Amino acid sequence: MNWPFTPDDTPDEVIDHEASVWGPLAAAARELVDACVMSDVDEGEVRAARADIESAVARLNASRREKSLGLTHSPAGRRRPWGNPVIGLRNPAAPPLEVTSTPDGRAESTFHCGAAFEGPPGLVHGGVVSMLLDQVLGHAVGAGGRPGMTGTLTIVYRQGTPLGDLQARAWVDRREGAKTWAKGHIIGPDGITAEAEGVFILPRAVRERLDAHEAAGGPTPEMRVFD
Amino acid sequence: MNWPFTPDDTPDEVIDHEASVWGPLAAAARELVDACVMSDVDEGEVRAARADIESAVARLNASRREKSLGLTHSPAGRRRPWGNPVIGLRNPAAPPLEVTSTPDGRAESTFHCGAAFEGPPGLVHGGVVSMLLDQVLGHAVGAGGRPGMTGTLTIVYRQGTPLGDLQARAWVDRREGAKTWAKGHIIGPDGITAEAEGVFILPRAVRERLDAHEAAGGPTPEMRVFD
Repeated sequence: MNWPFTPDDTPDEVIDHEASVWGPLAAAARELVDACVMSDVDEGEVRAARADIESAVARLNASRREKSLGLTHSPAGRRRPWGNPVIGLRNPAAPPLEVTSTPDGRAESTFHCGAAFEGPPGLVHGGVVSMLLDQVLGHAVGAGGRPGMTGTLTIVYRQGTPLGDLQARAWVDRREGAKTWAKGHIIGPDGITAEAEGVFILPRAVRERLDAHEAAGGPTPEMRVFD
Repeated sequence: MNWPFTPDDTPDEVIDHEASVWGPLAAAARELVDACVMSDVDEGEVRAARADIESAVARLNASRREKSLGLTHSPAGRRRPWGNPVIGLRNPAAPPLEVTSTPDGRAESTFHCGAAFEGPPGLVHGGVVSMLLDQVLGHAVGAGGRPGMTGTLTIVYRQGTPLGDLQARAWVDRREGAKTWAKGHIIGPDGITAEAEGVFILPRAVRERLDAHEAAGGPTPEMRVFD
C-alpha cells in the first residue's frame, strides 16, 4: 500500500478556525439525518425540506475537494480525522464518538446512538456495534504507540444494545512485532452488550519510520490510530 | 427480548406512495452528507448552507414520530426497513445497499462507498466493512427462511477496501437448531478485500411462531432478516 505521508504543517489556529466553520455545518446535517428517520410531517413539508436540502447541496458542491479528507489531512500532522464515519467532525453520518485515550493503550467513549442507528426494533444495528468497536479498539492500539489497521475483528453479541446513551471501552491486550491485540466492549443500561477482540497490524512503511525514530533516540512521534 | 410483532396491514399502494415521498428526501440528504466531507467552498457559503439545513430540520421536526421506524414497521407485514443504517430508504447515512437474495440462503449487493465512508486514506473504514458484511450475512440467513440476530461476527481483512464501487456476497454455511452460520465477503477492483463469518440466532418468540406455522402445514411466512 502506498501510504500517503505528505507533511501537514497547517497552524493550530487555522485548524481551530476550520473546525469552527465545518463542525456546526455537520452538526446541523446530523440533526437532519435524525429528522429524516423520525419526522412525521406531511408531504408538502417533506418537499419543502427537500428543496432546502438541495439548496444546501448546490452551495456546498459549487466547489469540491480534489481528494477526500483522509488523503489530504495526513496523520503526520495534528490529527484531523474529520471525514471519519465514526468520529468525524465533518461527517454527519458519524454519531460522532469522542474517544479519550491514554498512552498505556486504553480508550473510552461515552456517546449516543439515535434512531438513525437502529437495526432490530429499538436496538442498535449489529453492524453499527461492530463499526464502533473497531474504531475504539483502533484508538486503544494507536494510543499505545503502535497504531495499526484492522487485521481481524471478532464481535460477540451478549444482548441487544438499546438505542440511547452508551459507553465503549477498549484496551491493548498484547503485542508481538507488527501486531497488536486489543479487546473492548460496549456497555448499555443493563451492562455489557457486545465484546470485541481485534488484531491490528502496523503497516510496514509506518513501522520503518517508527523504528528509525526510536533508533535515533528521538521521541516517538504522535502516531495514533489510522482512522 | 420483547419482540414487537404488531401486525402491519398498510396497503401496498400506501407504502409505495410513502416511499416516493421519503425516498427522495433521504437521497438529497445523502448527497448532503457527501458534500459535508467533500465541499471546498468558503466560509460564507458554508454558513448559508447551514441555514438551509437548519430550515429543513425545523420543517421536518415540526412533527416527530413517537416511535422509531423499527418499532412501527414490524417485520410481520411487507418489510419496510426504512431507517436501517445500511439499507434504509429513509436513512441518509446508509450507502444504501440494495440486497438481492434467494431462498437457498444467498444474498448479494453491488454498491458504492463514497468519501463519507473513509477510514484510512482512500479506503473504506474497517468498521464500515464489518457493518456492511453483518447486514449482507443477515440477509442470506433471513432469505434461507430462519432469520436471526447476530450472535458472533468475525471479519478477516485481506487488503484495504478502496472507496468506490464494490460488491458483497453472503451465503448460509450450515444450520443447527436456532443457529445459522453464514459466510461472505466484499469484493473490490483487486478481488476479495474482507471475509466474514457469523452466527445468527433465531429469537425464541420467532422460532415458536415459525414452528407452529410449519406444524400446521402452512407455508412459511415471509420472514427475512431482522435489520
